[in-house]
Amino acid sequence: MTITIIGIGLIGGSLAITLKENGFAQRIIGVDVSQDNLDKAIRRRLIDEDMGLEDGINAADIVVLATPADAMLHLLPQILDKVGPQQVVIDVGSTKERLLAAVKRHPSRGRYVATHPMAGTEHSGPEAAIPGLFEHKCTVLVDTGDSDPDAVKMAERLYRSIPMRIVQLDCLSHDVHTAYVSHISHISSFALALTVLAKEKDESRIFELASGGFDSTVRLAKSSPDMWVPIFRQNRDNVLDVLDEHINQLARFRSLLIKNDFETFYRLIQDANEIRRILKK
Amino acid sequence: MTITIIGIGLIGGSLAITLKENGFAQRIIGVDVSQDNLDKAIRRRLIDEDMGLEDGINAADIVVLATPADAMLHLLPQILDKVGPQQVVIDVGSTKERLLAAVKRHPSRGRYVATHPMAGTEHSGPEAAIPGLFEHKCTVLVDTGDSDPDAVKMAERLYRSIPMRIVQLDCLSHDVHTAYVSHISHISSFALALTVLAKEKDESRIFELASGGFDSTVRLAKSSPDMWVPIFRQNRDNVLDVLDEHINQLARFRSLLIKNDFETFYRLIQDANEIRRILKK
Repeated sequence: MTITIIGIGLIGGSLAITLKENGFAQRIIGVDVSQDNLDKAIRRRLIDEDMGLEDGINAADIVVLATPADAMLHLLPQILDKVGPQQVVIDVGSTKERLLAAVKRHPSRGRYVATHPMAGTEHSGPEAAIPGLFEHKCTVLVDTGDSDPDAVKMAERLYRSIPMRIVQLDCLSHDVHTAYVSHISHISSFALALTVLAKEKDESRIFELASGGFDSTVRLAKSSPDMWVPIFRQNRDNVLDVLDEHINQLARFRSLLIKNDFETFYRLIQDANEIRRILKK
Repeated sequence: MTITIIGIGLIGGSLAITLKENGFAQRIIGVDVSQDNLDKAIRRRLIDEDMGLEDGINAADIVVLATPADAMLHLLPQILDKVGPQQVVIDVGSTKERLLAAVKRHPSRGRYVATHPMAGTEHSGPEAAIPGLFEHKCTVLVDTGDSDPDAVKMAERLYRSIPMRIVQLDCLSHDVHTAYVSHISHISSFALALTVLAKEKDESRIFELASGGFDSTVRLAKSSPDMWVPIFRQNRDNVLDVLDEHINQLARFRSLLIKNDFETFYRLIQDANEIRRILKK
């Protein structure tokens, strides 16, 4: 099996290592707008060789689209223009509604399976690629009814080989869910980092005290704007809804502090503790 | 050296293991309102024996006060009533202004050193105590000018034995700094957990997708209200200031989304990325 990965960054590069190591792919071809990324990917042995977009697509059994979400919007139709009836195309992006709308009536729509392997780190680029990133995590397959059954089966085989759990969602639900369990966490971290960085202007030693709790809540604030701005742009309406709710929750804590109502504050923390049920580690 | 630890939870218990293992203490006595906690602490070998408050104080070279912050307010004056001129008392609490005001004119004020070892986890109780929790982290010594020099030296020896870095701050600065680098992270996590838990009522499968980024931002939402409500109560004014700033930062992201101003959004993320400088891992 030959897999061509378009966009050899954190996600594309990590998939490349994983699928080569587990034997699912015999040959991995990298395509990237940055020759520097491709050189790094070859030096790190993430890919076997690099090619231009057209040659890369022609050589592939499976094409994996792993660029930032804005580039996907124009690349996916171009890729579908070129694929034959035996080839399969998957994307690994974090937003789906607009991307699926962009290829809704494409004659090769059936060869494409929209997927979202839910894993990542705050780092980016081929130097951030790591094996094991996806292991035992969850992949969402989106609107599979619009894909050819054999293409869906191939995408499932790919993800099961890692292995990953597979969940199916329609594109609207997918984009709402990711706004809640991924996108808002990033905005919250960016805002928290800005809050403390602004204070650092007066209190230069403030970060001497930062410890584990702070690190874990602002870790995501290191994430790349090149990846995240296109996601927020494409999932703007859902992100706005969740952001409003998050601000409301914070405003509730604020008003309880103002009123010195620490009994209700206590009960809200108990309610928040329910998250233990979800985070079992 | 005999150390009596009052409050054998996550912090007291972790200090107990550490100071016994590194040879700083030959004997650790535990005092706790919960006999269940004391029994667990003995079974886990966190402490050598348990005693009542008065006996525990009498037997100690150093008394470590490690209860929730509200209990400290009435325990610290009682402890100082009982200590002699060779004994040293330290607390390990997360807020200092009110605690220091409560003993400002106490005749034994000099025997007391206010300290804050900056480490913790989202778990609590003696079962959560772990060795290595404090290693190479930062301890703040607060308002040391009000403590006897020999007592300060003893507190420094204790923390250096772990080893921890030592920073000195006045109590007002300490409480502002911890509001920024610790307390707000917890409120943000509680609010984020409540936001997604509320959505779960309609979308029962929403957490299937939660992955590493979500886990790290809501991890602190598992933290105990018994520990945190007294902290928020005592550091209310600073926490309110930081919470206002954090809500303002989120409102800025919100307004940029509404205006579709993704250029400014991009620049704000770049500014937030500056946090890389602080979080070097």
